[in-house]
Amino acid sequence: MKIFLSLSLAAASLLAANLVDTAKEAGLKPIPNSKTELMKLIDNPKNHITDEKVELGKKLYFDPRLSKSGIISCNTCHNLNEGGDDGVSAAIGHNWTANPHNLNSPTVYNAVFFDAQFWDGRDPSLEKQAQGPIQAGPEMSATKEHVEKTVNSMPAYIAEFQKAYGKDVKVDFVKITDTIATFERTLVTPSAYDDYLNGDKNALNKTQKEGLKTFIDKGCVTCHNGVSLGHGMNAFNVHATYKYQNVGDFKGDANGMVKVPTLRNITQTAPYFHNGQIWDLKEAIAEMGRIQLGTKLSEKEVASIEAFFQALEGRKPTLTMPMLPASTLTTPKPDMN
Amino acid sequence: MKIFLSLSLAAASLLAANLVDTAKEAGLKPIPNSKTELMKLIDNPKNHITDEKVELGKKLYFDPRLSKSGIISCNTCHNLNEGGDDGVSAAIGHNWTANPHNLNSPTVYNAVFFDAQFWDGRDPSLEKQAQGPIQAGPEMSATKEHVEKTVNSMPAYIAEFQKAYGKDVKVDFVKITDTIATFERTLVTPSAYDDYLNGDKNALNKTQKEGLKTFIDKGCVTCHNGVSLGHGMNAFNVHATYKYQNVGDFKGDANGMVKVPTLRNITQTAPYFHNGQIWDLKEAIAEMGRIQLGTKLSEKEVASIEAFFQALEGRKPTLTMPMLPASTLTTPKPDMN
Repeated sequence: MKIFLSLSLAAASLLAANLVDTAKEAGLKPIPNSKTELMKLIDNPKNHITDEKVELGKKLYFDPRLSKSGIISCNTCHNLNEGGDDGVSAAIGHNWTANPHNLNSPTVYNAVFFDAQFWDGRDPSLEKQAQGPIQAGPEMSATKEHVEKTVNSMPAYIAEFQKAYGKDVKVDFVKITDTIATFERTLVTPSAYDDYLNGDKNALNKTQKEGLKTFIDKGCVTCHNGVSLGHGMNAFNVHATYKYQNVGDFKGDANGMVKVPTLRNITQTAPYFHNGQIWDLKEAIAEMGRIQLGTKLSEKEVASIEAFFQALEGRKPTLTMPMLPASTLTTPKPDMN
Repeated sequence: MKIFLSLSLAAASLLAANLVDTAKEAGLKPIPNSKTELMKLIDNPKNHITDEKVELGKKLYFDPRLSKSGIISCNTCHNLNEGGDDGVSAAIGHNWTANPHNLNSPTVYNAVFFDAQFWDGRDPSLEKQAQGPIQAGPEMSATKEHVEKTVNSMPAYIAEFQKAYGKDVKVDFVKITDTIATFERTLVTPSAYDDYLNGDKNALNKTQKEGLKTFIDKGCVTCHNGVSLGHGMNAFNVHATYKYQNVGDFKGDANGMVKVPTLRNITQTAPYFHNGQIWDLKEAIAEMGRIQLGTKLSEKEVASIEAFFQALEGRKPTLTMPMLPASTLTTPKPDMN
């Protein structure tokens, strides 16, 4: 009995070691434990992450006065209290306008690991991305001038920019959006899955390990790989079935490619797909098997993959709510039209 | 010289002592330093404040899924990152609808000290108040059933209710809104003004002390008194000038009375008045002199009162952002219509 148990434990241990190797060979990468290693992945060499920038960026991220109406902030659609998104099919912005392509808001958590931002991958960095929704008519609907005038109207903001960038800083649109992006770079959520790949054999339970194996064996990992399990562009038939047709003239990038979304925190970011038409994670998994892998996943396989996804629920950064500086008489007034 | 200085200091000290007495005689009351004394003011004897209820109430306060659309939470209009309000003239709610009376969202900070809630004072408590905006068509636009079904669809919420109220708790609309109110009861913001009334003679500077004196001498304190410097109902001519006419059929309460808003954090809660038509605090002070006191305050008096208002900027509670439980398949879907 004892011998069997030992053998069995040894076999399990061997399997575990093999699974970690298999996962890494398949292109899966953990969020590193080491702060130095993590910094290499998330820092911007042209604009290093500092505590001052992150604190200021957090304020700007939560400040609805950057929008034309004064009531929509970055956090409205990328809600850090939820999965870093808004939980609705198509983003709703200024004047209650839905995204014109019926596109779903992606999560901001771990977005720093993406090679491309937006569903059509048009921006390469969070810095560039942050400039988009602030100006988009159906989102925050602001002009660069509005944003600059708003931030510059509050002495407390100017003081914080000077603290973060030096006395001579020019608080312009790019500096403001860069600072928001710096905050976003820190929004990473290590999970049991990372602990497992980083060497903690017991971080995943048996079902989750089996799920990871199914995930790799079935080929999901072909697109969902790297640190964020989804980061670059991949061919995706946006008109594959009726469920994906509600995307207006959205056609992906110039090559018809659509960004592969991250699977981190996927249990917290329903509804799914670029048009947010599927609410059931099991259905989403099965649909991906059918459309992308050309295979009918069994119920057991779907359940197994979903069990693995539970292990991707990350530990969110503990954030203290920022207090925003008070408006002054020169702060632009809200405009609801 | 020394004698003069001593005399002058003694006189100042006497003035200070007198000013505190005068303020208290005029009906001004500080937020108490003692936690026990504070608890007497903010607790609900029928539903005591506990850490479990406050943490759960915070989550519900920030949860946009309580609304019909899934994107409006209590915090949307009573934004704790700002002055506890939304910084716009008339609240904007479901389907981008402005408050039908063009009424301005009051701050939630220190609202626990009010005798009456809403501009027409129709609700006596935060518990009752919390039921209103969730159901109001132009605000969160939800039914009681929607709210109950939403919260009950998430096992993590049920578990927290059981922890807060015991195993047999029925998570119904009243229990949910009561819990939100319990969180709101803790949103008090002691300030330099309180420190001064509580005995710290140096908490206010000379200009602020003079401002407090002007505030009392001119009669502002007739309505703006008590712990929140504004709490009950008072006659206010809602149609006094063109600036107040944009209020639809709002007529105040049955006696034509309008609630006296708190002056705490007033420097952070522009625009002012029940219809949010005045953005400049100085103008607001002068208008109150004209309409309510029948007097033309000099520029110096207005500036003096404004200086005192700076001392009412309170220390906000340090809040850790809550992580909301993930939706499940039985969570009601967002409805934008």
